[in-house]
Amino acid sequence: MSKLAVALGETVRRERKKRGLSQEALAAIASLNRTYVSEIERGLTEASARNLQRIAQALNLRLSELVRLSESHND
Amino acid sequence: MSKLAVALGETVRRERKKRGLSQEALAAIASLNRTYVSEIERGLTEASARNLQRIAQALNLRLSELVRLSESHND
Repeated sequence: MSKLAVALGETVRRERKKRGLSQEALAAIASLNRTYVSEIERGLTEASARNLQRIAQALNLRLSELVRLSESHND
Repeated sequence: MSKLAVALGETVRRERKKRGLSQEALAAIASLNRTYVSEIERGLTEASARNLQRIAQALNLRLSELVRLSESHND
């Protein structure tokens, strides 16, 4: 998959762990499937902006902030 | 489609026109289909982050900046 998918996945995992959330909990808050969240975290799928926004909101982030965090860790 | 898709589409169209680019030109620079770019601009498809990144790069923007612009026009 793309470098972007990998970078976004690493950021989602990092921010999720910071908040002490399991993948199951994050998936439930974001109304997404746990397997799908796992694939996103591992950079195995090219997620839609809309589903990344659901994840960002579950982490109390704006989508732009989630993306910015992934960029700043991967420049 | 989602409010996000509509907001992103409006932002892509606005930034494209600012640069005097046609949809065809933007699609060519971004290595995407012209029809797909048209659907994104009209908010008719939930684009992947990766394809939105291609469009952002074709507009000399970072993906986070493209998303931020769409948020600031739709709060």
